[in-house]
Amino acid sequence: MAIEQAIDHFLSSTCEWLRGTGPESDIVMSSRTRLARNMTGYLFSGRMDVAAQQQMIEDVAKAVASVPFLKNAYFFNYKSLKDLDRQFLLERHLISREHATEKGEKALVVTQNEVVSIMVLEEDHLRIQVFQSGLNLVEAWRLIDKIDSALESKLLYAFDPSLGYLTACPTNLGTGFRSSCMLHLVGLMMTKQVDKVLQALSKLNFAARGFFGEGTQASGNFFQFSNQLTLGQSEVDIVDGLERVMKQIIEHEKEARNYLLEKRRAKLEDQIWRAVGTLKSARLMSSAEASGLLSLMRLGIDLGMIKNLSKTNLNALFLFTQPAHLQKLSASMLKAVERDQKRAELLRTRLKDVEVA
Amino acid sequence: MAIEQAIDHFLSSTCEWLRGTGPESDIVMSSRTRLARNMTGYLFSGRMDVAAQQQMIEDVAKAVASVPFLKNAYFFNYKSLKDLDRQFLLERHLISREHATEKGEKALVVTQNEVVSIMVLEEDHLRIQVFQSGLNLVEAWRLIDKIDSALESKLLYAFDPSLGYLTACPTNLGTGFRSSCMLHLVGLMMTKQVDKVLQALSKLNFAARGFFGEGTQASGNFFQFSNQLTLGQSEVDIVDGLERVMKQIIEHEKEARNYLLEKRRAKLEDQIWRAVGTLKSARLMSSAEASGLLSLMRLGIDLGMIKNLSKTNLNALFLFTQPAHLQKLSASMLKAVERDQKRAELLRTRLKDVEVA
Repeated sequence: MAIEQAIDHFLSSTCEWLRGTGPESDIVMSSRTRLARNMTGYLFSGRMDVAAQQQMIEDVAKAVASVPFLKNAYFFNYKSLKDLDRQFLLERHLISREHATEKGEKALVVTQNEVVSIMVLEEDHLRIQVFQSGLNLVEAWRLIDKIDSALESKLLYAFDPSLGYLTACPTNLGTGFRSSCMLHLVGLMMTKQVDKVLQALSKLNFAARGFFGEGTQASGNFFQFSNQLTLGQSEVDIVDGLERVMKQIIEHEKEARNYLLEKRRAKLEDQIWRAVGTLKSARLMSSAEASGLLSLMRLGIDLGMIKNLSKTNLNALFLFTQPAHLQKLSASMLKAVERDQKRAELLRTRLKDVEVA
Repeated sequence: MAIEQAIDHFLSSTCEWLRGTGPESDIVMSSRTRLARNMTGYLFSGRMDVAAQQQMIEDVAKAVASVPFLKNAYFFNYKSLKDLDRQFLLERHLISREHATEKGEKALVVTQNEVVSIMVLEEDHLRIQVFQSGLNLVEAWRLIDKIDSALESKLLYAFDPSLGYLTACPTNLGTGFRSSCMLHLVGLMMTKQVDKVLQALSKLNFAARGFFGEGTQASGNFFQFSNQLTLGQSEVDIVDGLERVMKQIIEHEKEARNYLLEKRRAKLEDQIWRAVGTLKSARLMSSAEASGLLSLMRLGIDLGMIKNLSKTNLNALFLFTQPAHLQKLSASMLKAVERDQKRAELLRTRLKDVEVA
């Protein structure tokens, strides 16, 4: 299938990580697992020549075609991918910033439902990702393990009996496994407790990142958490450890929301309805402002205040107000001020049925 | 008529100075003239004993009853006026802060249409005020002169052939006349030119005050201008001088609005629609915030952007969102936070037909 058609399909659907379903989906947006894999007989990605890169992409394409779960997946060769399309895939979390921007031959495998993405020739030869909505690390682990085993039967993974899977960066050595959860901590932000929580997590070696991954600021009060220290731990230990800590944060967030409802209800309702009023009326809006206001609106949906808008559709707005998404929707390149106009227009249109009570 | 009925009548009507009609009413809210008068045979207000004050109120009541134009006017004796009612009259510009708060016998005459108010026993025995909508100083002068002449035929004014009318403060000596205009300078505020204009006016001895007169801050981008130096000038000279300067400011304000429309239209529309969105959705709103947002909305009406709301009804909101008005509307005393809630509720209700285009 042509890349254009694939992107059109994505443009009219919602990513798995934004569907807003699954356990604890009021607070947990999504769960993600990732595996780093490399092949024997090749140098690491950064050191390969073009011919070897092209050969590897062919090998992977063949292997992918034989995995039943990946049968209808899209296969993007980066040669034919425009910058805007790369940014689009980056905004959807299907690729990393490094994969989007660095030179060289690269490819991407994505299932139509966007649950699985496999970056070919990232820092490692393969970076396999699986997304689930809500707090669902176990399922994300079960699925990635299945895909990994299927690929391993077709590809020669670089594996050392004592070190485990070999990776470009030693921090990934062993299982090559990482897991993360994205949480909407609007209550902890509003009660100014989020820094305390982040500090405590950092002591426990859990890293916090923004909505768009490594090196990005928290946006829309979303924080992505992952365990930093994984050496010597099995995948199941890692998943269990992260899930246990996430459940503690969820409790803190619930307490913060209850506190706001009980002690500062008038102010809270004012903030939420003002956010709705601004989103429904502004003519110019930056992406950062949109995220902040949509975060308040998401809380309004969680609290049952806002009707006529599903959480899935609200979640989608976090994504569709991003620069590349706006430009793909308009089918044209837009300057920053034009994007601010288009973003405000999109929000007014998509929120027109939401009534201010 | 009982005071309660009079206040109920005011509560359901719009003051003359807020009607939003008359010449240049896009920029000029209202014109006002004032005369200070004292009676012979009495000490000045501050030095009179209670018996003399009561006698004077009786004299004035009799004189007022004989003036045809004032026949159906309300006559308030301050003895029966509660603090909240005084604050209510102050917000409507019918009395001065001094008259509202200082101890002693006092009275007030107000015509039902609120065009004329006469404070009895303010700093001077009589302070006669006439309001007109828009830039209409000549009519405000014509009318106050007629009322003054009618009263003079019944009351013994303190007049010295060489000094003119005697007044408690020497700055009012002579004609006892002052005139002022209230201008909505939202364009000059948004283009940050208002300070320059105020400085130039101050050099020409024109004073600028806020929406609620002497000693108040500019609110909702309204400025009240009056000539400071009037000694040796006739009333007609004073009115002409003020009107000439007002016309210059009006030109500057029009230029500022044109500049905004031509050079910053997207930003201007964004600011105006956001103001509407916030006014239609907030749950808590301070009086200062309401004034600022209503000011933007007034500009939106002037520019033809906002439909389904007359300028008269918009203008009325500047007044009805004030503390005493809110409390009279609710028929109860309200704490600050309750007022912020009531104010937001009133705005949502009164603006519900305004659609965000």
